[in-house]
Formats: sequence, structure tokens, C-alpha cells
Amino acid sequence: MVSSSNPTAARKPVAQLYYELLTLGDELLLGLTANGHLTFVGAQLGRRGVTLRRNITITDEADAIVAQFRESWARADVVITTGGLGPTCDDRTRECIAEVLGQKLVHDSQVEAQIAGRFERLGRKMTPNNLKQALVFERGEILHNANGTAPGLWVEQDGKILVMLPGPPNELQPMFTEQIVPRLAARGLLTEREAYVQLRTSGVGESALETKLQSIFDRFGPALSIAFCAHSGHVDCRVSSPTGQLGEGELQAVAAECARLLGEDFVSHGHDSLAKVCADLLRGQEKTLACAETASGGLLANAFTDICGASKFFAGGTVCYSNESKMQLLDIPECLLAQHGAVSAENAVAMATGAAEKLGADYALAITGFAGPCGGTKENPVGTFYLALHAPHGVWSKKLSYPGPRTTVKVRAVNAALDWLRRELVRASNGASAISSRLGAMQ
Amino acid sequence: MVSSSNPTAARKPVAQLYYELLTLGDELLLGLTANGHLTFVGAQLGRRGVTLRRNITITDEADAIVAQFRESWARADVVITTGGLGPTCDDRTRECIAEVLGQKLVHDSQVEAQIAGRFERLGRKMTPNNLKQALVFERGEILHNANGTAPGLWVEQDGKILVMLPGPPNELQPMFTEQIVPRLAARGLLTEREAYVQLRTSGVGESALETKLQSIFDRFGPALSIAFCAHSGHVDCRVSSPTGQLGEGELQAVAAECARLLGEDFVSHGHDSLAKVCADLLRGQEKTLACAETASGGLLANAFTDICGASKFFAGGTVCYSNESKMQLLDIPECLLAQHGAVSAENAVAMATGAAEKLGADYALAITGFAGPCGGTKENPVGTFYLALHAPHGVWSKKLSYPGPRTTVKVRAVNAALDWLRRELVRASNGASAISSRLGAMQ
Repeated sequence: MVSSSNPTAARKPVAQLYYELLTLGDELLLGLTANGHLTFVGAQLGRRGVTLRRNITITDEADAIVAQFRESWARADVVITTGGLGPTCDDRTRECIAEVLGQKLVHDSQVEAQIAGRFERLGRKMTPNNLKQALVFERGEILHNANGTAPGLWVEQDGKILVMLPGPPNELQPMFTEQIVPRLAARGLLTEREAYVQLRTSGVGESALETKLQSIFDRFGPALSIAFCAHSGHVDCRVSSPTGQLGEGELQAVAAECARLLGEDFVSHGHDSLAKVCADLLRGQEKTLACAETASGGLLANAFTDICGASKFFAGGTVCYSNESKMQLLDIPECLLAQHGAVSAENAVAMATGAAEKLGADYALAITGFAGPCGGTKENPVGTFYLALHAPHGVWSKKLSYPGPRTTVKVRAVNAALDWLRRELVRASNGASAISSRLGAMQ
Repeated sequence: MVSSSNPTAARKPVAQLYYELLTLGDELLLGLTANGHLTFVGAQLGRRGVTLRRNITITDEADAIVAQFRESWARADVVITTGGLGPTCDDRTRECIAEVLGQKLVHDSQVEAQIAGRFERLGRKMTPNNLKQALVFERGEILHNANGTAPGLWVEQDGKILVMLPGPPNELQPMFTEQIVPRLAARGLLTEREAYVQLRTSGVGESALETKLQSIFDRFGPALSIAFCAHSGHVDCRVSSPTGQLGEGELQAVAAECARLLGEDFVSHGHDSLAKVCADLLRGQEKTLACAETASGGLLANAFTDICGASKFFAGGTVCYSNESKMQLLDIPECLLAQHGAVSAENAVAMATGAAEKLGADYALAITGFAGPCGGTKENPVGTFYLALHAPHGVWSKKLSYPGPRTTVKVRAVNAALDWLRRELVRASNGASAISSRLGAMQ
């Protein structure tokens, strides 16, 4: 296997390189499997200065693969394909691409030995169709697959790069980070360092963010780009310099200025979730947290327990669906439930206080409500939630109302609770006398 | 807004129609957001006889959108676009497509009033850039957006259909099922009924399923296709007739035969989750359930509380991270924790029993373990879980071990617990004396 000389593509600046991703497979087009390859490869390239220009998903049919690869190869500097390298009859990527490149497929006995060895280690019998996976391009490199049978393939031809990756994510992902990224970087096809600075915000929409940051846009003009991306519970801003005029230090300075302008709406530089930011603040202040949930049903506790080392700050939580469970687990008086109902500010406050006391925590969040689609009252229709926050210096509640299906409103109530706690912990860490000054904004 | 006459596309059989999906947005290509639109739209079309032929994701740049839409519009019968209908300067889909179609964009005052009304209801101030979303095609229909500001757009032109959908999934998905699917069906562009019969299974892999069902394959030959698709916690089988020889009734009969052959590994006909199947069995038997979790951190309770009407069968749950919380909430003796540790069969059993007693439930599931990446002991390394099931006739535990990151092993432990409960409820509903006969298989 001999590599050809450095690709013509390497003469372009990284930002102008045309990367195209071909994801092959009917299971993607039928929505049976999510296209995680786009998310993974896109993020890997994006962090190193390349915005993937195009992702095309097509079926496993040979004609479609040949026609699409011919088009992509003519247009792009780097083509990455995923899937269709397996042993079964609907795995046709190798043959189709060999046809377009005018390459021969040759049998590699070393790959065959590796495949046979893998079957032996797993104690399974190798069927003859597995030998197909030992076919490789006569001019190209073999990328060892540590987690499966089909090797990846790397071809430099026509001044371009072709990367062919197996479909299973646990095979593709380590192959990409360990073998592809270093090869691309060595040829100058990725930036040496991360290409943009990210800010995470919460509590404001995209259009309001754009308005808040307008003065910064005005000052830099086209040298600066701030792209917004709304997610459930937060909006991310990516600060970059499309013209390359602003270096990494200047972008960091712009991001810091954005954070100052945004005040408490600024969550973090980076990708930390609201729960992770709360966790870091709690650990920094050596405080602990408890949860008490009804309608959010464990989703709030789950957000905290997704964090490594949660036991350092998370005492525990309760999911009290029945009134009996509220009385049993949190000592909520029966008369309170009878008088105000389970979906009430009074019960939310009692749940937060009960959780903090029972679990010996400094802070406690409570969520009660009607997630729907059934239930609800005239005063508190489906989508109504009461949140309560117990802090070392007091306890408060707020009422919120969300439209949408059950799973959506659960997520929204949890995000609201997380953001509330985050803001209070930020104030506490700034030494402010926190919640008392904000009572006007709550119900 | 006037629709043109029925599209030329309607003269083709549904299976031959060319559907193309254009997903727009740098956030997809940068891997910041998963392309859930492909998964959703692909699955919706697949169930109604259409395999989406191509999905293309491109950047938000105007030139790229214009060039790509021109190509897609020339090739496809139905083009569906997602994203780029928002208020900010990088939302350009409307303008670009209007250019290719030779259509004018006109301001719609009714849409503007709806946008303004939405801002008012949410108590937020509308910024002027939001008015852009009131621009619609002069020849086309407006698709009302119940969950956001940007309306969808429907155009019939050149014998083809164009559907433009907003990017946020909670806006796109109801718009697609409630407004797009009926419109496409009315024009003969989708099959009238579901095109395949689905079975959901749990506890067996794809290749073992294929082997179990081999006798059915052999009998029908190419008239029958059973496609397998592995998901987290279950494998789906789609039974269809690629040659069209088998009608809906025959496919239903084949699916019923598969279910019989699979026995307890068969979960449901359709798309019900393991939790939903458990919920239906509990309601059918008029039994209630409680949960007690440590390492799964609320994810198990959340699976049950995602189900509408969960209060009918779900008493509640606890997430006991600290030992104190286990003692306080579930009355677990301190000496048990000291002697066996929190990650032990003994504690799992005590948690299940404690939850059933405290919450007055007939069944209780408990999960304790080391989700990692830190923690673990020599005997119980990271990835070790103990599950316990309390039933009216006894309590049992099992030990499981999973590789992988924290969030993955949490999901796997929860799926194992759900499947365990499901199997026991199936036996109980069959009147079998249930668990006792299976103890040999458990630790």
C-alpha cells in the first residue's frame, strides 16, 4: 500500500476546503436509526476549523451510490463515507466506489487473519460472506478496526482524500479520532487549534440575544460572526471570525464581553449543561441539593445524577405521585393537600422544605404540576407547574405554564427549575443577598 | 392563497415517488444538533409506503441553498425542507426558495397578528426581526404553527409539492403529522394504510431473532421480508411484502405467528415502550408500582411518568444517593449498609421492599450500582448493577454488568429492570406462579 504525494487540497486554506460526508443506509432514510455520524463527524471537524459543507444520505442501491459518489468526488476536496462495508449482500460501498475511482479490489490476507482471529476470540463461527471484508483498494491504506471486522480505507487520488468508515458508531468513532484526525492534520487539512469560542445562555431567545449583542456586531462588522443555536433550555452562541482577522485571543475577549453584556443569562463558556453548572456551583460552595418531584417524574433528579461524582453534592430525590407518598416520604400534612391540592404553591413549598429536611440538604428544588394530557383544573389547567426553591436563607415558589405534549412540558419545567437554581447559586457565589430582591418577579 | 390542481406526481405509484428532504443549518453540519428531522420524517413516510430517497444537509449560505434547491426541485416529486424560517439574519430559506420558484414573498397580516399574540401571551417583547416570519409565498398555503412563531409553507407548482417546515422539533413534528400527512394522503402521495406490520422484541439480538424466525422466512420466500432494527433495550422487526403478494391481513397473521414463536421475548405489536407495556399490564391487573433508585438516578421513574395517566398505577419513587437518604426515605437499616454496602443484592432487596411498603405498592423495582466512571470496588467494578423486584408473592434480585459511559449504563440498567418487570407481569397475567420457577436464571 503506497500513499500518493500530498493532496492538491492541502494548498487551500482550511476554511475553504470542501468536506462532504456520505452516510449510506436505508435504515437512516427510514428513520430507524438516527444519523449520529453527521453529529459526530461534524463536531470533530467543526472544532478544527472545518464546517462540513454537505451531508448526503442515500439508499444502499448500487446505482444510487455510484452516481452520488461520482458527483461528490468531482466537487469535494475530502469525501468521507460511512456504512456499507459489512459482510451482507446490501453492503456495496467498496465495489461501487472502486468502480468510480477505477481501482481494483484486492484480497488482503492480513485483514482476513484479523477477521478470523476476532471470530475465534468471540467463540463464533465465521461465515464465508465475512471474507468480503478483506477486500481493499489496490492503491490506498487500510485503517485497522479495533472494535469490529470491517477495516476502514484511506485513499489519496486525483489530489483529493477519500475516507471510508464502517457504520457501527463504536467502530467509526475511535477510528476517526485516532487515525483520521491525525492524518488530516498532518496534511494541513484541519486547523491546529479549536476554531471558535462557544457561549451558552439561558432565559432569552435567539432574537433577544441578537439584539442584546448588537453593539458588538456593529463594532467588528464582517470580521466577526456570532451564530445562535437554540436547544431545549438553552441557546448557544458560537463566536468566530469568518475572515480570519480575529485570532483566538481576540475571540476569547469578545466572548468575555458577550458574557458581561448578558449578565445572569450567561451560563457558561463551553458545553456544560444547566445541571452541570449548578453542580459545579454547589461543589464550589460546599452545599448539597435534594429534589422533590411529582409531574416531572424523576427527570430533574436524572439531570443531576447524569453528572459524574453526583454523590458529592446530590443527597437524593423523591417522585411522589400519590398523595400517600407525599405524606409518607416528605411528611406533607394531609390537611395541606386537602385544602390546596397537590398542584399548588403551598404543596411545592412543602415538598421543597420536606426534601431538604428529610435528606439533610442545603438547597432543594420541588416541581409539581399537571403534565397532561388529562387532569388539570379550571384554575390550574394542563401545563401548569408550581416550582419551589428552598435555600439556606428561605423558600420561594413560582407558577409557570407551558403548552405542548407531556414529555415536552416535563422537560421545560425541569429546565426552568435548573435555571432558577443556577441563578440563585450565581448570586450566592457573588455574595448577593439573593432571592429576597427578586420576589416581585415571581408569583 | 390558492392551491393549483393535483400534482403530476400523483400519477405515479407511491413506491416510485421521489421524496427528498433538505435539512438546513450549520448547527447540523457542525454536529451541534442531531438531525432528528431525518429520523422523524423518514419514519413517518416509511410507515406510509415511502422510502425517503435522499436527505441532504447543507449550510445556511444563500448560494448553497439556491443551488441545492434548484437541483432537488428538478429531480424530486416532493421536496421537504426544514429550518431557516426563523427571525435572525441566518434564516434565509424563504428568500432563496422564492428565487428558484419565481415566487414573490408577501407580508401576511394574519400571521403577524399570531406572532404578536404569541409574544404577548409569553409576556415577552417582540423585536422587529420577528416580522420577517410573516413573509409567505404569494402562491401557496400557510401551515399554522401552534407551538412557535414561524408558520410552515405548502406549495404546489410544476407538478410537484414543496413543504417548508420550521426547525424546532416541537413545532415541526405536530405540523407534519397533523397537516402534512393528511394533505399528502389526500393527493395519493402516501399509502392509505401502514405499509408494514411492526413487532417489538426484547432480550434477544438481531441474528438470534433471524434464526428463531427462519422457518417463517423459508415458507414465504421473497414474498416476505422481515427487517430487524436494534434500538436501546429492544429490537424491532418490520414485516412487509416487497413483492406486494401478501395483503395486510396476511402480514398481520405472519406477525402473530412471529409473536407466538418468540414467546416472552415478544413485547408488543407497534411502537409501545417497555414502560408503556408494563403500565398497561399493571392497569389491566389493577396493581400499582413503586421505584427505588440510586445509580439510575430517576431515569426509571421518568420512564413510567412519561406515560399519560401514570398516577393510575405509579405510586412514586425515590432517588437515594446518600446512605442517609436510604435510611430516611426507605427505612433501610444502617447495619445492612455497613455490612453489605449500598451496591449489593441485600440493599437492592431492602430498597424494593422499603419502596413497596412506604408507598403502599403491589410491585416495586429497585436499581443500585456503580454508574462510573469513578467509584466501584474489586468485587463490584464500575458498570455493576444490582436490581431487585418486589412482587405480591416475593422479592428477588439479580446482578448485571455493563461496559460503557455513565449515561449509557444507566439506560441499560433501566431497560433491564423494565424488561424484568414486563416478563413477570406477563406471567402473572397468564396465571403462572411466576417468578419462583425462574430463580435458577438469576443471581
